[in-house]
Amino acid sequence: MEDFTFNNPTKIIFGKGREREVGKEASAYGKNILLHYGGGSIKKSGLYDRIVASLKEAGLTVFELSGVKPNPRLSLVRKGIDLCHKENIDLILAVGGGSVIDSAKAIAVGYYYKGDVWDLYTGKGSADKALPVATVLTIPAAGSESSTGSVITKEEGNFKRPFDHEVLYPVFSILNPELAYTLPDFQVACGIADMTAHLLERYFTNAKPVGLTDRLIEGALKNIMEYAPVVLSDRKNYDGWAEIMWSGTFAHNNSLNTGRIGDWASHDIEHELSGIYDIAHGAGLAVIFPAWMKYNYKHDIKLFAQWAVRVMNVEQKFRSDEETVLAGIAAFEQFLESLGLAVRLDGVGIDESRLEEMADKATNGDTTTVGNFVKLKKSDVYNVLKLAL
Amino acid sequence: MEDFTFNNPTKIIFGKGREREVGKEASAYGKNILLHYGGGSIKKSGLYDRIVASLKEAGLTVFELSGVKPNPRLSLVRKGIDLCHKENIDLILAVGGGSVIDSAKAIAVGYYYKGDVWDLYTGKGSADKALPVATVLTIPAAGSESSTGSVITKEEGNFKRPFDHEVLYPVFSILNPELAYTLPDFQVACGIADMTAHLLERYFTNAKPVGLTDRLIEGALKNIMEYAPVVLSDRKNYDGWAEIMWSGTFAHNNSLNTGRIGDWASHDIEHELSGIYDIAHGAGLAVIFPAWMKYNYKHDIKLFAQWAVRVMNVEQKFRSDEETVLAGIAAFEQFLESLGLAVRLDGVGIDESRLEEMADKATNGDTTTVGNFVKLKKSDVYNVLKLAL
Repeated sequence: MEDFTFNNPTKIIFGKGREREVGKEASAYGKNILLHYGGGSIKKSGLYDRIVASLKEAGLTVFELSGVKPNPRLSLVRKGIDLCHKENIDLILAVGGGSVIDSAKAIAVGYYYKGDVWDLYTGKGSADKALPVATVLTIPAAGSESSTGSVITKEEGNFKRPFDHEVLYPVFSILNPELAYTLPDFQVACGIADMTAHLLERYFTNAKPVGLTDRLIEGALKNIMEYAPVVLSDRKNYDGWAEIMWSGTFAHNNSLNTGRIGDWASHDIEHELSGIYDIAHGAGLAVIFPAWMKYNYKHDIKLFAQWAVRVMNVEQKFRSDEETVLAGIAAFEQFLESLGLAVRLDGVGIDESRLEEMADKATNGDTTTVGNFVKLKKSDVYNVLKLAL
Repeated sequence: MEDFTFNNPTKIIFGKGREREVGKEASAYGKNILLHYGGGSIKKSGLYDRIVASLKEAGLTVFELSGVKPNPRLSLVRKGIDLCHKENIDLILAVGGGSVIDSAKAIAVGYYYKGDVWDLYTGKGSADKALPVATVLTIPAAGSESSTGSVITKEEGNFKRPFDHEVLYPVFSILNPELAYTLPDFQVACGIADMTAHLLERYFTNAKPVGLTDRLIEGALKNIMEYAPVVLSDRKNYDGWAEIMWSGTFAHNNSLNTGRIGDWASHDIEHELSGIYDIAHGAGLAVIFPAWMKYNYKHDIKLFAQWAVRVMNVEQKFRSDEETVLAGIAAFEQFLESLGLAVRLDGVGIDESRLEEMADKATNGDTTTVGNFVKLKKSDVYNVLKLAL
């Protein structure tokens, strides 16, 4: 097990109707709240009204910045930073999914950063302070509601880049599984692919033994696989959504990577897909992760066999780890397809014309690598993308 | 899944030699540190010197209160509260196992409580503030290093009572698996029984479905069962201790009971054993838990069957859940015996002479019940104790 420091301070407020507590919780951080959200869906569902009512009841002043899009944009982040300065914002309340929360985090950390906030996402700058961010989660997927991460897209050049820092843990997150009832099929599927990928990125590590977190990750994966069909076939199943929502948050709250170093190549490669083609992150992961597995399983075939048997319920072929692993990867592709997702690039509308460009961008012109389990150079990324064709 | 609020702020600092960071961490909380510990073992091992050196290097002033015994005593807690007032203590640093940490927590919360600190443990008083407590863990067992709980024994009458409050989460805990190398066999075994019991108390719940936490608890239990023989047979196995130590902390950090209500009858009953007979808590649990299972499995035989199959690796008897469960309980007793622990009262030196007294004390003279999975009255507790004979 690797040495680690773990300290996740996000307060989780989980259950039916608990968004009504948002005013009381938010009031601990000051008077001026920036309500940050996407489009009209939270207005249509009535969530917007409940939240504004709760905030006003607590005597808070509400400012608004809407218009967050999937793959959230740097331009809106810059607008948010200006607004926070102008209105002396005390807390940014993100109401939505991972894109809204990531955008809120970027505004929060950009608020104190002296230069251009994009510097943080390119590694040119560093941060040690952020405005407090809180969330009301509507899409179980990204895990950003209890994580240190934020991913932003810069429109000029279609660069999508992550920034991670512990100042980005939200101060509190309200998780009401009922809020997921109105999600469309495709968004449900992408969310499940995303939380699954967060667990797999952590699972494939060179640290060993890491017995506890191996088993915890395996348990979370099995639970997601058990309840995914429940919520897909019965959109108002509270118990099913409670399992999926809490699994998605737990998957990414950093307790499951204590003592291990995750891989994250699939995420980095996917960022080039959604950066250039503006596809959903979860849909991109469903294409990239199986290809990444096929390219890399020989690096630690015993770990892949353990995953295949313990998680994918593949019968162990005692005379051939490779058969076991390949059956596991096939079962994983079947699971993703059962969600209604494609597992090949053409299924998300991507042909081979820009594979090299993506491999080049992912590795900054072949000067860096992606991934920790195996460090992939530009040619490796290109090969992974080819396997995804 | 039950609604829940979860917010564990304890910073975990895990790895080889990390007690050397204690001064730097402690300095964030003030100048005056009360070093709280048991007897001479931390002096013999050199740990005491390393910690005092680190604290002094950080410019801190160190006060001391030693003499904590297993089943920590109220009288020392009172002495500690007085000392903290006299010396204007800013942080209590507990160096030891659960007894030392529980004693430190009692001092910390008693410091601000206007009346007698014992009121908190009898339910007569309530608290909303405590001095910060930090820990350097030397015995993987109680989980107190990242929990809300404290258990104290009042010498007059041999009352052993718990107090739980979120102000008792330690501010930071340093976990160095190497510090467990010198533990005697019996203490290792008791620690493993204790952490196992913490997981089982959470597992047996009426909340359902609780798929994620079911699987996480199962994984933690399996990991403990895998690594217990490793550390018992090879006391300086770092990897084994890392697994056991982190499992013990994770077992009790409250993330694994999110959405479920644990039982805790076995703990309450055991407190009467160790209160009266001053036996080790883990040794008492090894006797009580199997008896509790035998008395209560019919309340939810499917849950017990799931545990037997998934955790105890019992082959499912498809025509008889009862056979499956009884095989699971037998396997659990075998596991406890493999640690060198007794699973019957006579093995811990207790005969039947005071069973009724213990049942009476556990239920406050038959006016209250113990447990949530099944609420046990005095006669039930007596029957559980009889089954443990």
